[in-house]
Amino acid sequence: MYFHTTMPDEFTVTPWEVKGKVDYDKLIVQFGTQKITEELKQRMKNLVGELHVMLRRNVFFSHRDLDLVLNDYEKGKGFFLYTGRAPSLGMHIGHLIPFIFTKWLQDKFNVNLYIEITDDEKFMRNPEYTLDQTRSWAYDNILDIIAVGFNPDKTFIFQDTEYIRNMYPIAVKIAKKLTFSEVRATFGLDVSSNIGLIFYPALQIAPTMFEKKRCLIPAGIDQDPYWRLQRDIAESLGYYKAAQIHSKFLPPLTGPEGKMSSSNPETAIYLVDDPKTVERKIMKYAFSGGQPTIELHRKYGGNPEIDVPFQWLYYFFEEDDNRIKEIEEEYRSGKMLTGELKQILIDKLNSFLEEHRRRREEAKELIQVFKYDGKLAKQMWEKIHE
Amino acid sequence: MYFHTTMPDEFTVTPWEVKGKVDYDKLIVQFGTQKITEELKQRMKNLVGELHVMLRRNVFFSHRDLDLVLNDYEKGKGFFLYTGRAPSLGMHIGHLIPFIFTKWLQDKFNVNLYIEITDDEKFMRNPEYTLDQTRSWAYDNILDIIAVGFNPDKTFIFQDTEYIRNMYPIAVKIAKKLTFSEVRATFGLDVSSNIGLIFYPALQIAPTMFEKKRCLIPAGIDQDPYWRLQRDIAESLGYYKAAQIHSKFLPPLTGPEGKMSSSNPETAIYLVDDPKTVERKIMKYAFSGGQPTIELHRKYGGNPEIDVPFQWLYYFFEEDDNRIKEIEEEYRSGKMLTGELKQILIDKLNSFLEEHRRRREEAKELIQVFKYDGKLAKQMWEKIHE
Repeated sequence: MYFHTTMPDEFTVTPWEVKGKVDYDKLIVQFGTQKITEELKQRMKNLVGELHVMLRRNVFFSHRDLDLVLNDYEKGKGFFLYTGRAPSLGMHIGHLIPFIFTKWLQDKFNVNLYIEITDDEKFMRNPEYTLDQTRSWAYDNILDIIAVGFNPDKTFIFQDTEYIRNMYPIAVKIAKKLTFSEVRATFGLDVSSNIGLIFYPALQIAPTMFEKKRCLIPAGIDQDPYWRLQRDIAESLGYYKAAQIHSKFLPPLTGPEGKMSSSNPETAIYLVDDPKTVERKIMKYAFSGGQPTIELHRKYGGNPEIDVPFQWLYYFFEEDDNRIKEIEEEYRSGKMLTGELKQILIDKLNSFLEEHRRRREEAKELIQVFKYDGKLAKQMWEKIHE
Repeated sequence: MYFHTTMPDEFTVTPWEVKGKVDYDKLIVQFGTQKITEELKQRMKNLVGELHVMLRRNVFFSHRDLDLVLNDYEKGKGFFLYTGRAPSLGMHIGHLIPFIFTKWLQDKFNVNLYIEITDDEKFMRNPEYTLDQTRSWAYDNILDIIAVGFNPDKTFIFQDTEYIRNMYPIAVKIAKKLTFSEVRATFGLDVSSNIGLIFYPALQIAPTMFEKKRCLIPAGIDQDPYWRLQRDIAESLGYYKAAQIHSKFLPPLTGPEGKMSSSNPETAIYLVDDPKTVERKIMKYAFSGGQPTIELHRKYGGNPEIDVPFQWLYYFFEEDDNRIKEIEEEYRSGKMLTGELKQILIDKLNSFLEEHRRRREEAKELIQVFKYDGKLAKQMWEKIHE
């Protein structure tokens, strides 16, 4: 008889699974990406005047060809941004992180942004979903995305089932260069996969060729493998290899391992969670680095490295560098209790969500602009990508 | 040491290869289709007043659900026709056969016809072709198809790369129901196939669901396997299983086995072949059932069963039943010489081609109607198939 033991440093990161406590330095080596060095950050700061909190705190920590993107920007050639979303019923805070950072990049570099809404893929991925469902989620998710505050003149949000005509010629050119063997492992497919999912990588790659400039993709590092295929074939079609800037995973409420999951509501804060729900979830589920009793906490202090409320504040919700340092010290020393720390996060979250929902209401007026009538959107509907 | 011997009755029929002398009765058993019986022919004749020469002479000899199509027609529910073409550089006479028969069906039953031009598939199938090439062949082939004389109010000719937006929602629903395993053998694919070809069956099946009526597909019997997949899934999507009416293969000029091939110019008469070329090809290459010398021919007579010029006349070019019988008897008896028989075919072919080319010139004016502006075309551009 024997027991299978998991080594404490074991972790898995693939596009369809994140397990264990991720060692991000190891991941950079495994994936063959580049670390965002202090030099590179300084260079960005020199170009745009400041660094987003997620860059300052290394939430975005890894990249491919970001240096080349900055070269192109400095030379006046420019670049463009591309990200996307597989529509789902209800987005959570984790889903917004890349969009928030992407908005900052757009603001600072004043570049075009393309956001692909994969209503087709989502439908084909899940046996139970209907296309009507994924399209109605697409509508809802687009409102949440617009609420982030993108530039309506320079942002084009498109749904695959609507924009397919414009993308299809370039997609068949991409598809012709990728065999089933090549996409199989990367996209988690096998011979029992449906033929729509097998073709879909061509549609995910197509927007990287929307302009004859370098494309920068901000995304979780788990998405990196998808773009390796693009990098293998882009130049043979006369386009640039897609550059990427990779984020760590905002830890789930329930503990510092893995990532938030839509199927476990207690691991995430949803964008529709009302103040009471946010308070209840944080108080009940948020994994704490504090001590079991107040006495022990005062004596030994809390551990911010494993404390999820602290991590969330650090990743994004407390942007003030002095204030986050203060919180860290007070918590570590035992001066700040777990309940107090949680309350800080609750307040931050609730004011963030209140503002988000206000802007989401406004987005209902703007959806037509981002999808069809805006300056960039109009140009894109007139263009067939070859 | 041993020799591999081919049994005289061995033959192969798949969508991508026809080899040997085809035993069509055996094929009906192998493929599990139905023979077009005399009763079924009589029923068609009663409905529309006459039988096309290709039905009278059993060139169209096999079917699936043709009886159900006639039931629907009799009940006033109706049906629709669907066929297609993978564009190529230069169509030959064999390519026109299904279109000519389809035109007859449309005329007699007064039904809608959809013709899919698979510029995408052709591009992805052949490593050397560019998409610009297959689209320019599409234009040329459409002219030849229009020249056949379809009803411009009831015919919609569409190219995949142009019409994709309208087909894509139903195509992803189809794609979701077909796994790589399922399409692999049928479409001659394997893991080294590109992902575009793997998805393509969904686009070939989509037009069978353009109307909530039964779809009848006239085609060579080698195309039958493609539609078995459609028949497996159609009802689960709320549509009818596609019915088919299958033709034999017009034999290549060079002999009674296999089928015409675009890559061997001496096996086929092209629609652009001028009178001199037609004469030279028939005289030089057309496989004869005659005797080696005039004397022997007069004595023993010719064999119309293996004589290709006779077969071509019988399949289509001599529609008069009395005249073809006369030719057969004269040839079999030795009264008609090989050269005389060939001359009959040459004259028929040349007058057919002359008329075809005249109508092909007129087609340049009509292409806009069949693709975009005609009554059916307009309706189809306003419709998204779900």
